[in-house]
Amino acid sequence: MFNTHIRFDRENLVLHLLDQRFLPGREEWFTCSNLEEVIFALKVMVVRGAPAIGVTAGFGAVLALKDVISASPVANWGALLEQKLGLLAKARPTAVNLRWGVERMRQAWQMAYDTRTPQGLLPKWLAEAARMQAEDEETNRRMGRHGARLIDEGDTILTHCNAGALATAGYGTALGVIYAAHEAGKNIKVIADETRPFLQGARLTAYELQKSGVPVTVACDNACALLMQKGLVQKVVVGADRIAANGDTANKIGTFGVALLAKEFGVPFYVAAPLSTIDLKTPDGSAIPIEERPEREVTHVGDQGITPEGVPVYNFAFDVTPSRLISGIITEVGTLTAPYKESLKKAIQEA
Amino acid sequence: MFNTHIRFDRENLVLHLLDQRFLPGREEWFTCSNLEEVIFALKVMVVRGAPAIGVTAGFGAVLALKDVISASPVANWGALLEQKLGLLAKARPTAVNLRWGVERMRQAWQMAYDTRTPQGLLPKWLAEAARMQAEDEETNRRMGRHGARLIDEGDTILTHCNAGALATAGYGTALGVIYAAHEAGKNIKVIADETRPFLQGARLTAYELQKSGVPVTVACDNACALLMQKGLVQKVVVGADRIAANGDTANKIGTFGVALLAKEFGVPFYVAAPLSTIDLKTPDGSAIPIEERPEREVTHVGDQGITPEGVPVYNFAFDVTPSRLISGIITEVGTLTAPYKESLKKAIQEA
Repeated sequence: MFNTHIRFDRENLVLHLLDQRFLPGREEWFTCSNLEEVIFALKVMVVRGAPAIGVTAGFGAVLALKDVISASPVANWGALLEQKLGLLAKARPTAVNLRWGVERMRQAWQMAYDTRTPQGLLPKWLAEAARMQAEDEETNRRMGRHGARLIDEGDTILTHCNAGALATAGYGTALGVIYAAHEAGKNIKVIADETRPFLQGARLTAYELQKSGVPVTVACDNACALLMQKGLVQKVVVGADRIAANGDTANKIGTFGVALLAKEFGVPFYVAAPLSTIDLKTPDGSAIPIEERPEREVTHVGDQGITPEGVPVYNFAFDVTPSRLISGIITEVGTLTAPYKESLKKAIQEA
Repeated sequence: MFNTHIRFDRENLVLHLLDQRFLPGREEWFTCSNLEEVIFALKVMVVRGAPAIGVTAGFGAVLALKDVISASPVANWGALLEQKLGLLAKARPTAVNLRWGVERMRQAWQMAYDTRTPQGLLPKWLAEAARMQAEDEETNRRMGRHGARLIDEGDTILTHCNAGALATAGYGTALGVIYAAHEAGKNIKVIADETRPFLQGARLTAYELQKSGVPVTVACDNACALLMQKGLVQKVVVGADRIAANGDTANKIGTFGVALLAKEFGVPFYVAAPLSTIDLKTPDGSAIPIEERPEREVTHVGDQGITPEGVPVYNFAFDVTPSRLISGIITEVGTLTAPYKESLKKAIQEA
C-alpha cells in the first residue's frame, strides 16, 4: 500500500500533495505554503476524493492560520481567520467532507484552551488536522473489514472513479473494501471504469491497484452494459461525495448509469463511505449542488485536443444515484440498508 | 453538407478516403490502390460506420478485381476473386453491411453479361459500386424525411457515436434525421456523446454538425443520466451496425446504457438505419458477434498514454440494445415499431 499522498511538514508549515493530475505518468509533489495554494490544489484536483478533500481541509485551515499569523497583528484575527475558512469551505461545492473538515477545525478552535492569539491556536489545530488524517485511514480500515464480508471468493468487482488510497488519507473507501477482501485471501479481480473526463479510474485506480498487487483491468465507461451482460461483473462498489438523508448518493458523473445497469443485470451495487459523507441536512439528492468544471477537461486529454474548436461541452462532475438502486451503504460502523432514512439517522446518532 | 468522404477515381482505379482517425484536427486523405489497403483502412477505421463500410466494400471489391487483373493470366481467376471477396467480408465482424456490400457485388457478378475475363467484369462492377454509393445517400435522405416527423420544434436530441455523413455515403442515418429536421426549419439542438474510446462523437459528430450549422454540444458518455435527469434531452437517435430479426440492435459500445437511461427518464429512443442493416438471418442479439479492438484505443488518446503500463484493458467495440428499449426503427420505408419480428420481416419482404 501507499505511504500517504498528503504530507504535512510541521516544522516549516507546508503541505505536500502528490499531484494527481500527472499520475500515473509522473510522480510529482505539489507544495502548498498558504491557503491560496491549497484552494488552487483543491480546485484543479491536485488532490480529490471526498475524504481526502476533508483531510486537506484540515491542513488548509492550518495554512489559513499561518497566513493570519504572518499578517498579524491585525485588529480582529478571529474574523480574518473565519473569512479564510469560508473561502476554503467553498473551494468545491459537492463533497460535503470539505465543509465537514472545516467545521471540525472550527469546533477545535472553540474548544481550544488558548485562543487569545493565533499562535496559541496553532498547536491545537496541528494536532486536530493530524488526528483527522489518522482517523480517516483507521475509518477506512474498519469500513474495509465490514465491506469485505460482502465480497465472495472469485468475484470481479467493478468500480467507477477512484475511491482508493489516493481519494482518502489512505487505504480507501470502495478500494478499502477491495484491499480488505484481498488481504483476507479472497481471490478477486477489479474492473476499473476509466471515468471520463478526468480519468480517475484509468489513471489512479489502475495505478494503486497495480501497485498493491490486485488484478485490475481498465474498461471505458461505455463498456459497463456489455461487461455485465457477459456475466463479468459480480459486484459494484463505489465511493461517495455526499449522501443525502434518504440515501441518495452523489458520486462521480456516470455512477447513476452504472447503478441502473447493475439493477438491470441483478448485480449488487454498494456505496462505501465514512459517516462524515452522510449529510442529514440534505433531505434528498435534488438538494445536492452539482459542480460544473472547466471545459478543457472534456476538450483535451493532456495536451491532445479532441473536439473541434468552438464546439461547447458539458462538464458536470457528479450525478446523484437514487437510493432505490443502492444495495447497501458500507460505513465504518457496518453496512446500512434500506430504508435509508432510518438507518442513516440511527448510525449517525449512535456514532 | 459534405462532399463525400469516399471518392473513387475511375481512371486510375484508386479509392480516396477522408482519414477519420485524424479528424477534426487534420483533413487528410488515405489512398487505397489495392484490396490489402482497403482491408487495412477498414480495420484501423480510416473509414467506419455501417453504411460507409458497405459502400467501401463495393469499391474494395473493384480493387480486388484490379488485383486479379494485375495477376492475370491465372488458372482460375474466378476462384482467386472469390477468395479475395472472402477476405474483404471478414475485415470487420459486427456490421452486417460489409457482408451485404460484398454479397451485392457477387450478385452483380452473376448477372454480368461478360464474365469470361476479369476485364469484362470491371465496367459492370464499377457501375454497381457507384450505384451502391448513390443509393445509400438517397436512402438516407428518405430515412431523414421519415425520421424528421418524429422530431419536435425545440427538441434537443442526444446521439451516441457518429451515424452521420461520415458514417455513410453521405447525409447520414441518425444525423440524416437531424439534418432533415433542421432543413425543415425546426429549431433543434444536438448533444453528442463523446463516445469513448474512438471518440466518434467528440471528433466526428461535432465536426460535421458544426460544419452544417446545427447547434451541437459535446458531453462525456458518463453525463447521459444527469443530462436526462435535468430534462435537457427530448429524444435519442442513434445508428446501427446490425439489427437482428427481433429488433435487437448492435451499435457502438455504450448505446445499451443510453437506451436504458432513456427508458428510465421516459425519453423516446430511436434507431435510424437502412434496411440493409437488418439481418433476418440473425434471430436475436445474442447471435451478433462483438468485435474486440486493439488495446491502444483505450490506453492512449492520440500519443497521450492514460493507463499505467502493464494494466490490461477491455475494448469491445459494440453492444446490443434489446428491442424492448427501442421506441422505433427509422428506415427508408418508414418508421418500424414493435412487434419488430413482424414489422422488420414485412418491411424487407415488401422492399
